[in-house]
Amino acid sequence: LIEGIDEQGMNGKGRFRIIARDMATMARRGVLHTRRGPVQTPAFMPVGTQATVKSLTPEEVRATGSEIVLANTYHLFLRPGLEVLETVGGLHAFMGWDGPILTDSGGFQVYSLAQLRDVTERGVRFRSHIDGSLRELTPEIVIELQMLFGSDVLMPLDDVVGFSESDERQQEAMARTHRWLQRSLHRFQELTAAFAEEKRPLLFGIVQGGFDPSRRVESAHFVASLPVDGLAIGGLSVGEPKDLLYAMLDATAGELPDDRPRYLMGVGAPDDLWRAVAYGIDLFDCVLPTRLARHGALFTPTGRVDITGARFRLHTSPVDETCDCYTCRRFSAAYLHHLFRARELLGYRLATIHNVRFLQRQMETMRRAIEEGTFAAHMERFLSSYEASTALTSSDRLVNG
Amino acid sequence: LIEGIDEQGMNGKGRFRIIARDMATMARRGVLHTRRGPVQTPAFMPVGTQATVKSLTPEEVRATGSEIVLANTYHLFLRPGLEVLETVGGLHAFMGWDGPILTDSGGFQVYSLAQLRDVTERGVRFRSHIDGSLRELTPEIVIELQMLFGSDVLMPLDDVVGFSESDERQQEAMARTHRWLQRSLHRFQELTAAFAEEKRPLLFGIVQGGFDPSRRVESAHFVASLPVDGLAIGGLSVGEPKDLLYAMLDATAGELPDDRPRYLMGVGAPDDLWRAVAYGIDLFDCVLPTRLARHGALFTPTGRVDITGARFRLHTSPVDETCDCYTCRRFSAAYLHHLFRARELLGYRLATIHNVRFLQRQMETMRRAIEEGTFAAHMERFLSSYEASTALTSSDRLVNG
Ligand SMILES: [Zn+2]
Ligand SMILES: [Zn+2]
Repeated sequence: LIEGIDEQGMNGKGRFRIIARDMATMARRGVLHTRRGPVQTPAFMPVGTQATVKSLTPEEVRATGSEIVLANTYHLFLRPGLEVLETVGGLHAFMGWDGPILTDSGGFQVYSLAQLRDVTERGVRFRSHIDGSLRELTPEIVIELQMLFGSDVLMPLDDVVGFSESDERQQEAMARTHRWLQRSLHRFQELTAAFAEEKRPLLFGIVQGGFDPSRRVESAHFVASLPVDGLAIGGLSVGEPKDLLYAMLDATAGELPDDRPRYLMGVGAPDDLWRAVAYGIDLFDCVLPTRLARHGALFTPTGRVDITGARFRLHTSPVDETCDCYTCRRFSAAYLHHLFRARELLGYRLATIHNVRFLQRQMETMRRAIEEGTFAAHMERFLSSYEASTALTSSDRLVNG
Repeated sequence: LIEGIDEQGMNGKGRFRIIARDMATMARRGVLHTRRGPVQTPAFMPVGTQATVKSLTPEEVRATGSEIVLANTYHLFLRPGLEVLETVGGLHAFMGWDGPILTDSGGFQVYSLAQLRDVTERGVRFRSHIDGSLRELTPEIVIELQMLFGSDVLMPLDDVVGFSESDERQQEAMARTHRWLQRSLHRFQELTAAFAEEKRPLLFGIVQGGFDPSRRVESAHFVASLPVDGLAIGGLSVGEPKDLLYAMLDATAGELPDDRPRYLMGVGAPDDLWRAVAYGIDLFDCVLPTRLARHGALFTPTGRVDITGARFRLHTSPVDETCDCYTCRRFSAAYLHHLFRARELLGYRLATIHNVRFLQRQMETMRRAIEEGTFAAHMERFLSSYEASTALTSSDRLVNG
């Protein structure tokens, strides 16, 4: 059903098109055509784990410049559950978001949240972190769930292993992830066989391989050999040092097929977004902007700031004078400082709006810079300003939750 | 400076005007002209204790139909404090609300929140509930603070006593509240002497007297004898049985001057709003709609509902099909149920929008009904629907915090 590259240099019957390339880096400017509209890439996807980008309405998510959001199959499977999502007519109707949604497979959440996890060739059995009930996810079930949710970009179940596990377990996890991908693709093709191409959701594959460059390359080659609509890089940004993340990107990026979208899972620090785009990454998701916002940490062009700090008490300007978001257009940093000190819900929300908009403005700048051939200069300018003051905070990237 | 009733039946140079009266009840339809615009009465004021109506932006507050909000002098005095509010240019600029603001005096909060309260004729000394620092409020300081905040309707410091305190203490508190009102009025007149009338904020007096009808009448007569711009009824809705609240209203309402606005502090249950308007009350404030919202309790025409209840799990309609609020126009009750079950911030916010809008729709209905001479019929219709299912929950009105 899913074809490879056609003669126009497009994959999956034209679902991804590269419209400009940077000459100095591997950065690409593309458009991913989902059944619910186009996504301009490089793109950042805010995370709506539980069918809500925390504290924001769909209109506010849209106003940040976000075109696609991520939701988590694991969480939605447990709560509200399939019966609710089917009754209300799917995830889009439920959460009031009519744009594209990418659904994570749950592999990472089963690994990081569930109790009594038992992984076999068949799938994974675990106890719900919410009510302790015994549950099972298999590659086939995970595809079926995402189809029933109405997802626009599906992810296959992967066997996730920790940073520090043995080489044997790393090798086994990669091999199993590959076999599970084949089963996922088979089930996906069965379920979408009757779909008109423009109504078909997309399925990505996930490249694993831990922190071994040769395993990463092997995995990239395997996933690329299958007719998946895009390639995700999984198992990174899980707490490892940054240089290890970049070593893996360096080893993998050149091995990924050029004509399909590349998605680096769980990355969303502003400096990492710039660097990863320079490696040719097209898609990102991360809880960082929303999670940091809830702790009063706000992105600015000169680095991350803690809005609860005394220096903002009498700060009558917006927290980021260059920002066009609702928060910065309407309120002083002093007001945000007060809201956080007083633990007012509005504070979390205003900070979330700003942080997500800050990332989307970076993506807009990147996209324009790639088109204009000035990506490297813009990256240099951003990083020299941003990193001057955040060199000490680079270790606190957060994993995808 | 402040004059009594002029020949057009208006007080304070025309700041309050009654435009219609119900014939069957004492309900009045009026307009209170503040320096930041008119307020159509009867009016409900949502509470923005800490310079934010919890979880809502100013635009969302406006969209509920609210024309005036309340903020608390006690809270703002302690946090963010006067230095911040002066630096940012006042409370309106700080919180981004350009409509009228009524500021509570802090008497109730000192009574209910502060530690080591020491009340003397001079004022009240207490320890901050936030940091334990020793503070003082006097009638004069409270007026000065509200003037510096930029309040549009000021309230004088009152000596608040508990429901169960002795008759002697009740009598003393009333007498002191009266003396403090005279001092408040004096300071207010000094500070506003140079103001053009249309730029002058308003000062209300507070009728106290506990739960003794004859003391209530005495207090009403005293406050009415002074050139205050409105009369507030304080010390009710503090946990007493409902019939006691209405006994006090019954004793007091007829004693209040007809030509000045009447403000019943701390009342905001939908049924109480209807009944109190029938007693001739014009203004209300209450934390009830916002506080209930945070606990998942939503107003509907057939009574209050608990959105976390199992019956909403698969409820594909809005929680209130008659409601025109953002929440009800955009989301199913099933989605609200999910957000509360998952403890998502968006849930509190959507519930708050609905509850405040629900109350404002009641006020709109009341105002129209008074104009059309159908108030009593509308009240009967509302109460018979609303109270059928909430007879058991009438004891949980919440005090103004
Ligand atoms: Zn901003
Ligand atoms: Zn509603």
